[in-house]
Amino acid sequence: MGGTAMKTLVVVGHPALADSSTQPFLKALSQDLALWHPLAAPFDPYNERQALWQADRIILQFPLYWYSVPAIMKQWLDEIFDDALLGPDHTHLAGKELGVVVSLGRPGDEFGAGQKQGFTIDEYLRPLQGLAQATGMGWLPPLVISQFAYQTAAQRQGLAVAYQQYLTLPQPSRFADRVQWLATRLDQLAQQVPAPEERQKLGQLRAVLLAQQAELDDLTANLRLVRETEEF
Amino acid sequence: MGGTAMKTLVVVGHPALADSSTQPFLKALSQDLALWHPLAAPFDPYNERQALWQADRIILQFPLYWYSVPAIMKQWLDEIFDDALLGPDHTHLAGKELGVVVSLGRPGDEFGAGQKQGFTIDEYLRPLQGLAQATGMGWLPPLVISQFAYQTAAQRQGLAVAYQQYLTLPQPSRFADRVQWLATRLDQLAQQVPAPEERQKLGQLRAVLLAQQAELDDLTANLRLVRETEEF
Repeated sequence: MGGTAMKTLVVVGHPALADSSTQPFLKALSQDLALWHPLAAPFDPYNERQALWQADRIILQFPLYWYSVPAIMKQWLDEIFDDALLGPDHTHLAGKELGVVVSLGRPGDEFGAGQKQGFTIDEYLRPLQGLAQATGMGWLPPLVISQFAYQTAAQRQGLAVAYQQYLTLPQPSRFADRVQWLATRLDQLAQQVPAPEERQKLGQLRAVLLAQQAELDDLTANLRLVRETEEF
Repeated sequence: MGGTAMKTLVVVGHPALADSSTQPFLKALSQDLALWHPLAAPFDPYNERQALWQADRIILQFPLYWYSVPAIMKQWLDEIFDDALLGPDHTHLAGKELGVVVSLGRPGDEFGAGQKQGFTIDEYLRPLQGLAQATGMGWLPPLVISQFAYQTAAQRQGLAVAYQQYLTLPQPSRFADRVQWLATRLDQLAQQVPAPEERQKLGQLRAVLLAQQAELDDLTANLRLVRETEEF
């Protein structure tokens, strides 16, 4: 499937993982897709460095506490992100991708100029964006999870797909990539389902999805042709 | 003197105070002007709350680590800034002032769009500005100390004055306020100096300073008059 070649490390910074409902949900989704790495002090610098060096995509995953990472993750950044990890010229992580999966206790639309929380999530995450820049890592658009506890089943299904794509798909992802990704996942699912009729249904769903995408590709090509003709 | 009525609390977040040359310099300057409060875990929530409630101006003072507060200060924010401190409506610190004294290991002009550090100090400090907004505290323009270790004696004298004014003067301060503040400090200094001729020199310096300010006030008043006349 797409993305298996890429090694993704999910670094989870949460002071009380046992109390979290979001993190177990995400952990189950990350299976086979990423290395799950919950932070616990004291850190073993050797192990932390190995995990970071071996990853292609590093995801910092945490609840937003006072508009930034929780203390446990800041401690990890302060202690581990030194010259031994980064190299004297800060090149040892260069070329990797840095992503952020941040969960909010407040509605996402409270963030922004003139809103209750004053600034956008992007603005509050500047320190991590600065870290990416200083270490030569590509900065992925953050995946924001608002008030997971209040999400409906449909919202959680959407989150599940978005999260798994965030771990594995080239970012920023194109619509066609996301469709292809879904088709591959349906295929994998069909192989795991024992009942033949269920398997057949999943196969049909996959066929419909791919046929729609083919039609969409045709329409897009036609539209491009029309536009090009109009220019003359 | 101006500012004695105001209670300033300096909260110092530094993981290795013994290795710092900046903090002892600032500590000596804060004497009689502010309560010096270096953070050490574990925190006593009762004492922390009392100190915060009693202050009129709260200064968060720290070296910038990965574009934000060191872990020890984040831990303090995460643990202490809860409903017990802030009250259910986050009003218990409302009306106070929140200031930041941040020391940089890099030159200040590396910060900004297109510069090596990517964003301005103001942008990196958004999480603390958000904290001020969420708790109803006034946000003071941060006092930035770049590369203290490389500063000349003259630069450090300038820093000393700026720092003491940051602790005590109404902010943002007007030029006339800063002159008055300096005159008062010279007066206090004169009273502590035993040698009569030294005392006389300080008195003369103070007289010159105040005479210049009086002249400046006159000029400003005249200029205003000229401008108003021109408008007719």
